[in-house]
Amino acid sequence: MEGPRTLQRTHLLTVGDGRFLAVESHVVAFPDGAVVEDWGWVISPDYINVVAVTEDEHFVCFRQPKYAVAGLSLGVTGGYIEAGEEPLAAAQRELLEETGYVADNWRHLGSYAVDGNRGAGTAHLFLATAARWQQPIDADDLEEQELLLLDRESVERALLAGEFKVLPWAANVALALVALNNAQAT
Amino acid sequence: MEGPRTLQRTHLLTVGDGRFLAVESHVVAFPDGAVVEDWGWVISPDYINVVAVTEDEHFVCFRQPKYAVAGLSLGVTGGYIEAGEEPLAAAQRELLEETGYVADNWRHLGSYAVDGNRGAGTAHLFLATAARWQQPIDADDLEEQELLLLDRESVERALLAGEFKVLPWAANVALALVALNNAQAT
Repeated sequence: MEGPRTLQRTHLLTVGDGRFLAVESHVVAFPDGAVVEDWGWVISPDYINVVAVTEDEHFVCFRQPKYAVAGLSLGVTGGYIEAGEEPLAAAQRELLEETGYVADNWRHLGSYAVDGNRGAGTAHLFLATAARWQQPIDADDLEEQELLLLDRESVERALLAGEFKVLPWAANVALALVALNNAQAT
Repeated sequence: MEGPRTLQRTHLLTVGDGRFLAVESHVVAFPDGAVVEDWGWVISPDYINVVAVTEDEHFVCFRQPKYAVAGLSLGVTGGYIEAGEEPLAAAQRELLEETGYVADNWRHLGSYAVDGNRGAGTAHLFLATAARWQQPIDADDLEEQELLLLDRESVERALLAGEFKVLPWAANVALALVALNNAQAT
């Protein structure tokens, strides 16, 4: 099975300094012979998310507002990958910065195109286990998100009730639960 | 906890006829007093995805190319919601169009902001059980995606190996596995 091919790329838009959002138009040839002349392509930074679980099986979560979400959402650690940074290093950095936790065991839960048609960067998802508190977090971050330690049953119930309202957060929590169940079963 | 507020919206770009992609710049006031003048905001259509499971516990999947993905990916049913259409109706329509299957039981697995900062539409995820084949699918769709019936163990293994390469597909499969495990446990 052959996939679509890019015949041409045209820069259309840079928002601000271009660090967070730019848009291209692609000419795309599809396997059935169709050619689309104005295929929108979104360029936004790759990011990581981390589900961190302590040794006594509590999940390090947040309750926080988020621009695209009405009201508050449950969330997990996340952030953009810096230039030249490996995804795992970004995940470890963000976990420490946002929560003050470190973890011994890191498992990669996959790297995903955020939008299968329009790109929008890659989401690298991680599960960190044997997480433990190491240092206080920066007070600036404290105001915007409330740190919560939730047991597995509460996390699962909240997930299935849609309380992790941002797609990569729900994806990361669900993948972490599948991975943890799978590890227990084998 | 108060969230960020939109002070102003400016239209920046429409790609093609605007059906799939437009971009705005927002002026956003954050709770800490900061104001960002050029916050990029992506407008793309809301969509559905469906994990359909047959009565003998086979998952209705695809193997297919996708523009934002290198090589082939495993996938699930998905599509944009049409004007005036309810998410559940879109999910039922797309399942029949793409696979020829119908299902008796539908469960909503949540509605998610695709990008917590920049919007990019809402993903509505569903689990359909007691799915059964009803009619042949349109030959045009056949060429682009190979239909596969995978047992639960194969789906879980492929998921944890990162073979569902698009974020909402992996999210939907992981959420479906959590929901199915949860239903068995209770």
